[in-house]
Amino acid sequence: MKSNQTGNPTRRHFMKAGMATSAALLSSSALAQETTLEPSRGPGKTVMEMGYYGERSEYVKDARMKGNRGTGLIGGSLTPLQHGHGIVTPSGLHFEVHHSGVPDIDPSEHKLLIHGLVGEEKVFTMEDLMRFPTVNRFHFLECAGNGMGEWMSPRGQTVQQTHGLTSCSQWTGVPLKVILNELGVRGDAKWVLAEGDDGARMTRSIPMWKAMDDAILAFAQNGEFLRPEQGFPLRLLVPGFEGNMNVKWLHRLEVGDKPWWTHHEVTEYADPRPDDKIRAFSFIMEGRSVITSPSAGMTLNGPGFYEISGLAWSGAGTIKKVEVSMDNGNTWHDANLEAPVLPKCHTRFTLPWTWDGKETTLMSRSTDDTGYVQPTYEGMYKLQGPIGLMHNNAIQNWHIAQTGEITNVRS
Amino acid sequence: MKSNQTGNPTRRHFMKAGMATSAALLSSSALAQETTLEPSRGPGKTVMEMGYYGERSEYVKDARMKGNRGTGLIGGSLTPLQHGHGIVTPSGLHFEVHHSGVPDIDPSEHKLLIHGLVGEEKVFTMEDLMRFPTVNRFHFLECAGNGMGEWMSPRGQTVQQTHGLTSCSQWTGVPLKVILNELGVRGDAKWVLAEGDDGARMTRSIPMWKAMDDAILAFAQNGEFLRPEQGFPLRLLVPGFEGNMNVKWLHRLEVGDKPWWTHHEVTEYADPRPDDKIRAFSFIMEGRSVITSPSAGMTLNGPGFYEISGLAWSGAGTIKKVEVSMDNGNTWHDANLEAPVLPKCHTRFTLPWTWDGKETTLMSRSTDDTGYVQPTYEGMYKLQGPIGLMHNNAIQNWHIAQTGEITNVRS
Repeated sequence: MKSNQTGNPTRRHFMKAGMATSAALLSSSALAQETTLEPSRGPGKTVMEMGYYGERSEYVKDARMKGNRGTGLIGGSLTPLQHGHGIVTPSGLHFEVHHSGVPDIDPSEHKLLIHGLVGEEKVFTMEDLMRFPTVNRFHFLECAGNGMGEWMSPRGQTVQQTHGLTSCSQWTGVPLKVILNELGVRGDAKWVLAEGDDGARMTRSIPMWKAMDDAILAFAQNGEFLRPEQGFPLRLLVPGFEGNMNVKWLHRLEVGDKPWWTHHEVTEYADPRPDDKIRAFSFIMEGRSVITSPSAGMTLNGPGFYEISGLAWSGAGTIKKVEVSMDNGNTWHDANLEAPVLPKCHTRFTLPWTWDGKETTLMSRSTDDTGYVQPTYEGMYKLQGPIGLMHNNAIQNWHIAQTGEITNVRS
Repeated sequence: MKSNQTGNPTRRHFMKAGMATSAALLSSSALAQETTLEPSRGPGKTVMEMGYYGERSEYVKDARMKGNRGTGLIGGSLTPLQHGHGIVTPSGLHFEVHHSGVPDIDPSEHKLLIHGLVGEEKVFTMEDLMRFPTVNRFHFLECAGNGMGEWMSPRGQTVQQTHGLTSCSQWTGVPLKVILNELGVRGDAKWVLAEGDDGARMTRSIPMWKAMDDAILAFAQNGEFLRPEQGFPLRLLVPGFEGNMNVKWLHRLEVGDKPWWTHHEVTEYADPRPDDKIRAFSFIMEGRSVITSPSAGMTLNGPGFYEISGLAWSGAGTIKKVEVSMDNGNTWHDANLEAPVLPKCHTRFTLPWTWDGKETTLMSRSTDDTGYVQPTYEGMYKLQGPIGLMHNNAIQNWHIAQTGEITNVRS
């Protein structure tokens, strides 16, 4: 083992390894005075002074990072992954992208039309839909453009900028197959067009196999109704497929026998290839991982113990393994995968690490249950060419200087 | 099978069963006009007009229900379980109970003193603590007094009032055993006193076996820092133990050789017994379940299909089975348990049901992996007498009148 070694936590391992240096060892009486001199802190805020819907502490400032272009109506915001924990993204920090602003929809007036190659065409109110059987599933959502700025060279200054277009929630809704079976689907039906009730009339073609597999007409997220920027009151959820296909503010599904070649699926959400062709209909967000802590923008406070923590996910299935290198890819160590490890869902991985204070590079590499191994940038270039747009899932390198400063680098 | 039967959803099952009656069948052109006449909804709100920390739609009004007593500093609020989905409780709707208001604590000044029968006494800052290895665990929290108003007779008008003192989150923190192992624990150490930095100086005695098992020094909840009313910046989490022992605003742990018999553990959070004795130190929240929809306060909109949905949990382990009766306990049907089914965690169960329009009573009964079966009120009375205080986990009955009106009844 090299000096950047892993190891099982043992008694006094961490403090001996040089951490927690600010925690002074004091005499017992001094300790007692430190925190217990007063028999009461004095009265706090009463429940009547608190909100019916609670808010976070004024000391907590974690925030989405906003961006927009053109007229300002195409925009979005990124999740601060460097401040996240576990696998649930707080709904208030979930990333979002919109193409003509976020509509304000009264759910009592919202309707979903389902028509085309079905036995019966029908309009559903929200009340109608919510009477059907529901499922609750933990799934990540990732924008196909997550990391698009990183193709040519490392530019993001934090993991929020490099990877912040992925988030994870428990989603609730009616399986689309339940509704399609209810109406009846004609034998020649092969595709479903999903259309959003936003200014952009976002439309995407969904293959019928996906509609009849795990697609969900979702109305809730993390135990409450969808947030407005997540498609309130109704969105399509196509687990593991690129974010844009999870059409928000869903108001129309048309069943057809071929894809519609809509604007967004053949222009913005398509992939240039080295042979000058364009790959469209690249649905699945392939296996990916990133170390969220320590990560770029942070500074290690001297040699000693650090827990490496990160997220891995695969739109093709379940994460089976995450390997971490603390020596620029020379050696790799299996990280701990924290339960629950769920399909098409963020998986939290951790690895104990003692930094020896020398310059090095951290990286992580995921493997999913299809056997797919997260590629390097070199591997990505062979597939898509060096000027990619979408579906960047390459291994991320975080460089650690002797000062402890962490930066985003290409190996 | 009786008329209140279960059944697997099949094609056209639900609408034939009389639901979705408001969804009119229209001609294709009328359908198209219904939702797709306009090529755009027009521009929505831009990202620059949105918050850095998102908020819910103005149309969503789900709220905690507040209550207090005495000077108003002892109070709390209940989770609207009837509006919940899945297993994650939104942090803004998580129940909470406080005994002298909610303190406002600057995390940069917060300290945790650990002293007593340890090899080394120590004061930790939040920064110190967060350097240690962390875990992220989904666990319910339930107040020991959840349903205390229901002992003598059914009083709550909704499931929020009868069961709203339970909620579930993914909690993040440092395993307490890591810290205790770091300091060293003396051989005669059998208990740990946890003290909160609130006006009440809440103190509870935690057995050492629990401290060295799955107890967590938790600083985050659902992917972000704890909410103020959940103990920001630090709380103890003792999974499956009564809520009050999960001491909030934690600032002192004292290791000792016997319990402290503190005020709250021998008065408010103790259980009268039929033999006129008091049972103290009743830690574990035993197996329980409740149907959250349909539930009291709702009215069924005529005969037809309804999905029965509810929550089950056990502080002793993992839910193995939930049985549901739709005929006042005459017959029972195994509900579907939705993945992930995790230890000491809410488990969502569902069961399809077609209501025939006749008067009946719904109930649910959980079994956990220790074999513990949720008791009836009659069973509870034998154990604790009819005037209980804490640890009411009896089977809940929801009566359905011919009008569809649902009320809280004793069988």
